[in-house]
Amino acid sequence: MRVFVVGANGQIGRHLVKMLKESDQHDVRAMVRKEEQADEFKADGIEAVVADLEGAVSDIAAAADGCDAIVFTAGSGGSTGLDKTLLIDLDGAVKTMEAAEEAGIARFVMISAIQANNRENWSEKIRPYFAAKHYADRELMNSSLTYTIIRPGGLLNEPGTGKVKAEANLERDSIPREDVAATIMAALDEEATYNKGFDLVSGDDTPSEALSKL
Amino acid sequence: MRVFVVGANGQIGRHLVKMLKESDQHDVRAMVRKEEQADEFKADGIEAVVADLEGAVSDIAAAADGCDAIVFTAGSGGSTGLDKTLLIDLDGAVKTMEAAEEAGIARFVMISAIQANNRENWSEKIRPYFAAKHYADRELMNSSLTYTIIRPGGLLNEPGTGKVKAEANLERDSIPREDVAATIMAALDEEATYNKGFDLVSGDDTPSEALSKL
Repeated sequence: MRVFVVGANGQIGRHLVKMLKESDQHDVRAMVRKEEQADEFKADGIEAVVADLEGAVSDIAAAADGCDAIVFTAGSGGSTGLDKTLLIDLDGAVKTMEAAEEAGIARFVMISAIQANNRENWSEKIRPYFAAKHYADRELMNSSLTYTIIRPGGLLNEPGTGKVKAEANLERDSIPREDVAATIMAALDEEATYNKGFDLVSGDDTPSEALSKL
Repeated sequence: MRVFVVGANGQIGRHLVKMLKESDQHDVRAMVRKEEQADEFKADGIEAVVADLEGAVSDIAAAADGCDAIVFTAGSGGSTGLDKTLLIDLDGAVKTMEAAEEAGIARFVMISAIQANNRENWSEKIRPYFAAKHYADRELMNSSLTYTIIRPGGLLNEPGTGKVKAEANLERDSIPREDVAATIMAALDEEATYNKGFDLVSGDDTPSEALSKL
């Protein structure tokens, strides 16, 4: 699969792009916001395109043209305001879904947040962020795409352990970003994850083992 | 119809509650956030209940129990932050839809904003607000409810003219809040508005005439 990574310059995105680049099974095209970011990827031999999640759906569709799957791992981040939460995490995500449909790319993997599906478990401090993720996920479930919604727990920068736990509903826990990226890799063509959402934290199984049980 | 008005204490809500109260065809139950607000309505002989759009769906469903239609005209307003835009205008609206389904109330009228359906026409200064309204409207269209989405132009406090224009897509223009309320009244059991959304500005037709052309 040629995988279009939205948010390639993010912390999960960088792990994922590297894994896709090293993979025998997949190719990667990184979508980034700035030319400098694209140049950095290109210097590493990685295909990269510049597109803006606040721009037109057709621009995103053109950037993704010819890919077989889209991974949405962009996030407005903690340093921006809730305007970007609405315009990137929600509207930018849905625009990417519409771009996938426009470009005829059926496979879509969304990186969400643990328990974004259950209002009563939204993190109290960042409820508005969870609302944005929740409705992006709902739009994806209502789309025509073959989706997988991965809802990781608290994200850590420490090296991955290679072992995860993936279930429809899990208690809040944490997981290294590298293990989230490895789980995205395993999910891409794992049919057990098609049209499903699941929570993801550190655990005892390899990503492939964990996903095959879904 | 017994009509449950969410946002009864808002500026459109107050006009609407008064019209429903004076109507021979309809009854009204006002939903408000505070006991004092409920007491004011009750002093005017209007049924009123206290419920919180940031609370549980089941509480909203209980508050609406026995009604035949719901009008959502609540808004977080200009004086609050985008946290409330996400939690009231989007999540509160969708909770109200879920409450309608839970309470078996099929008819739902949403007050949105002109061209909230077209990203390219969102008011640049308040794009995040338009995003919230857009996705609330999309959730309604994906629900099982018999919906009408009314998207008024710039809201004025001057007295109504009794004359409006209602079409699927209109140029930005303005309309008195009193005329929006009169259009909601006319839409409640007007089948030409079922499962449709339309822009609304001041015009040359009575609300009934305008809606029958949809």
